[in-house]
Amino acid sequence: MALPRLKIFGWGREGEGLTPAEEAFALDIHRARFGVSDLPAIPTPTLADIRLRAPRIAPPASLARICTTDVYERAQHAHSKGFTDSVRVLANDFSNAPDIIAYPETEPDIAAVMDWAGSAGAALIPFGGGSSVCGGVTPPRDAKAVVTLDLAKLDKVLEIDRSSRAARIQAGVFGPHLEHQLRPHGLTMRHYPQSFECSTLGGWIATRSGGHYATLYTHIDDFVESLRIVTPAGTLETRRLPGSGAGPSPDRMFIGSEGILGVITEAWMRLQDRPTFRAGGAVRFTDFFTAARALRVMSQAGLYPSNCRILDPQEAYNTGAADGSVAIMVLAFESADHPLDAWMARALEICGDFGGKPEAPGGGDAHREGAAEQWRNAFIRMPFARELMTPRAILSDTFETAITWDRFETFHDSVKSATDNAILQATGRPGQVTCRFTHVYPDGPAPYFSFHGLGRHGALLEQWDTIKKAASDAVIDGGGTITHHHAVGREHRPWYDRQRPDLFATALKAAKKALDPHGVMNPGVLIDP
Amino acid sequence: MALPRLKIFGWGREGEGLTPAEEAFALDIHRARFGVSDLPAIPTPTLADIRLRAPRIAPPASLARICTTDVYERAQHAHSKGFTDSVRVLANDFSNAPDIIAYPETEPDIAAVMDWAGSAGAALIPFGGGSSVCGGVTPPRDAKAVVTLDLAKLDKVLEIDRSSRAARIQAGVFGPHLEHQLRPHGLTMRHYPQSFECSTLGGWIATRSGGHYATLYTHIDDFVESLRIVTPAGTLETRRLPGSGAGPSPDRMFIGSEGILGVITEAWMRLQDRPTFRAGGAVRFTDFFTAARALRVMSQAGLYPSNCRILDPQEAYNTGAADGSVAIMVLAFESADHPLDAWMARALEICGDFGGKPEAPGGGDAHREGAAEQWRNAFIRMPFARELMTPRAILSDTFETAITWDRFETFHDSVKSATDNAILQATGRPGQVTCRFTHVYPDGPAPYFSFHGLGRHGALLEQWDTIKKAASDAVIDGGGTITHHHAVGREHRPWYDRQRPDLFATALKAAKKALDPHGVMNPGVLIDP
Repeated sequence: MALPRLKIFGWGREGEGLTPAEEAFALDIHRARFGVSDLPAIPTPTLADIRLRAPRIAPPASLARICTTDVYERAQHAHSKGFTDSVRVLANDFSNAPDIIAYPETEPDIAAVMDWAGSAGAALIPFGGGSSVCGGVTPPRDAKAVVTLDLAKLDKVLEIDRSSRAARIQAGVFGPHLEHQLRPHGLTMRHYPQSFECSTLGGWIATRSGGHYATLYTHIDDFVESLRIVTPAGTLETRRLPGSGAGPSPDRMFIGSEGILGVITEAWMRLQDRPTFRAGGAVRFTDFFTAARALRVMSQAGLYPSNCRILDPQEAYNTGAADGSVAIMVLAFESADHPLDAWMARALEICGDFGGKPEAPGGGDAHREGAAEQWRNAFIRMPFARELMTPRAILSDTFETAITWDRFETFHDSVKSATDNAILQATGRPGQVTCRFTHVYPDGPAPYFSFHGLGRHGALLEQWDTIKKAASDAVIDGGGTITHHHAVGREHRPWYDRQRPDLFATALKAAKKALDPHGVMNPGVLIDP
Repeated sequence: MALPRLKIFGWGREGEGLTPAEEAFALDIHRARFGVSDLPAIPTPTLADIRLRAPRIAPPASLARICTTDVYERAQHAHSKGFTDSVRVLANDFSNAPDIIAYPETEPDIAAVMDWAGSAGAALIPFGGGSSVCGGVTPPRDAKAVVTLDLAKLDKVLEIDRSSRAARIQAGVFGPHLEHQLRPHGLTMRHYPQSFECSTLGGWIATRSGGHYATLYTHIDDFVESLRIVTPAGTLETRRLPGSGAGPSPDRMFIGSEGILGVITEAWMRLQDRPTFRAGGAVRFTDFFTAARALRVMSQAGLYPSNCRILDPQEAYNTGAADGSVAIMVLAFESADHPLDAWMARALEICGDFGGKPEAPGGGDAHREGAAEQWRNAFIRMPFARELMTPRAILSDTFETAITWDRFETFHDSVKSATDNAILQATGRPGQVTCRFTHVYPDGPAPYFSFHGLGRHGALLEQWDTIKKAASDAVIDGGGTITHHHAVGREHRPWYDRQRPDLFATALKAAKKALDPHGVMNPGVLIDP
């Protein structure tokens, strides 16, 4: 699978991006939203424009084979893929580019790089696809030197256990290449974060990625059967078990550890049969909260749809799924075992109890039609929009959380209003804050907010800070989590610190000190060095 | 709910036990099994027979109010409820009885007891219902002094969130009292470990208890929404969230920590609506492995029966569920939302593909009839049998594990044969080893083994050691877990040490040292002081 290389500015690989029609659709919406007739773009720097400081360290001869200081490589690993990253790339700011990129081929390579980084006093940043939208792979600015450890060469499915539906998989594999290797066995992971094409198994596990399933097992956490991890103190492997009650789960200490304890090199993952039965479609509701109340009942009914996302009217309009007057529920069941008529019938009954109207009543399987398909396409293409927006000074970002049902409506309103106000304050004109649910649990939803404001070049970072701070404060003050599935990274640290119990940080810091005594691994992420 | 007090010898509360008919049934089976005409019992010590050493420490005046040195209390807290405990009680061995029993009424009480235990150099043993079958609440023999902290007074449901189906519950509440408090709200936890009547919420969480549901969310772990924990370093509370991706889960560090990090005082727990729809019954299979293969398909079908346990022919016979010629699957679906016909029909189709025959074909809802009900009764009554067995020198115990499907059949045979051989070696005559599944996952089952051998008074502990060691070695050598839901306690330590990665122990030890610097909490459990 020889693919074009990843872009430095923007999402995906070189040659990929929005079509002219998609661009026109998005720009039309933004011109109307902000009441402007033009949205001029400033130019994007090219590779030839990028100047990097000389590497502050050099690898020992024994590691030269797997290390590079190539400018594209250093620039490509200098930023994550959030809004602030797009601003810095646009400003040709590569001042914190890593000094060295290492491409280990084996676990001993990783251990050797760790040893070297430790002795050189360098920070080591594990890197999968680099798709973090919260600064997860961004090198710290205060490090003496930075080595980024790119896992791209560890990309194989090593072993398949068909009867247990599990596979041993190297952590550096990208989503599509993983699925490609599983397909001949009739298996699939069915884990499709929005970043699917630009992110890796190891990244999903290290950040507690949320995936395809909107209910039941939504996070990657539940699909991990066992892990192999290289830490500065040595390598460890957990036992492959379908379930265990032997002490605190070792896997759960590393799932979500965002590279601060070590590098995940392999995992046995629980897989799925490829679905052969499907039922689904879109359901219209008069408003978002009514849709949410229907979804609460659905989430507690034990039906477990694979998809039951809801979009508020404006979000539905923005993605072309509706005309702005109704909220939309995208509903889908899938199975490799049985027809889903009984499941779908009961789900539509629940929707009906709240006035929900199927888009195509009696139209059979509509999961790839109408609003549902429209939303699905928009979902996959959305990350490409940023390279259109930022050069036009459009502040465009998302944040996501989770909250119990009893607090949801108040929480939604206070978060939306705090964010709306901050956009007005930061940019001097109203913007837009929309909401959808990405995942739902019996005890509450995971609301996902998108916001747009018209900013000003030169002030974008400051404007974004104002909005991000207001939104994040409202999330934490309202009892939510600072991230349901994006991760903490460097950008969510202040609010993560308010969310996690202090004594948990004390315990985690002690655990890190035991595994990473010299503080080499991703310093500053999750806890202070 | 004023209940009789817990027994010192045997299961449950004073006045409870097997009926004469149940005793006769069990003894008939054992006489036939061992080919003996009589099974004479030695007498059980009474409270008046028990002599305890003088307490080695005394509480400060400020704590005298919540502390006791009463002989019943100290004797009742001297042992767990495993086989070895029953032998020691029978031998009137209370040499390791705790010095003081504290009954805290508040979190500050707990913190004060911790401080005092720390300054007195005493070990502090958190105690819920004391139903551990692996020495989880047994005081260490090498401690300078021992204080047992009994949470019985923290037994309230403090808050209900009906819309999120969750409640804030104190950790010391026993199963029946918990359900009693939830019932007026139409809610239930539906967590019914075999110990349900004699165990507490805090104990379930601290030991990663397995419960009612045979599929999907089987462990208590998944029902924990947030925790409050008092540690020697202070009190912490995790945020109440339906889901989160913010760093490693703080809850998961304490779930399964078996009292070594602190004392769980409260939890927000995810609850269920009381089921109103049911479908189920028993299905007969020619043999255990065929039933297991059917169950593998069922576990991967996405049907999620609340019960789908299988019993091997001998286990089915022992519980009166069948005549010994067939394996039994106990199958049940339940819902508070929808009829279950489609679910049950597909499940029976899967069973049919493997020759499984419903006990009452066309008989409608058979979940409380025939073999299924027979097994259910036997399951609940089983723990009472030990007080019949041990005085008769019958080595009777269980152990449980989990293993992926690809290894299950080989694993089953090697564990069974190692245990069979060890019984013969230890007792000089054949015994019996039977197996059932208590829980199943898409990637493998949780097999639960029971064994019986005819031992000899005076040699019971040594005979049990031989059998336990052979069985546990086979479990670990075969790739299983030393416990799927019973816990590690003191008895599983040697095999837990072989199972968990060394570097995880290193990290856990560092975390413990940070939260419990003086090593007060349950020393010797999970990790060395």
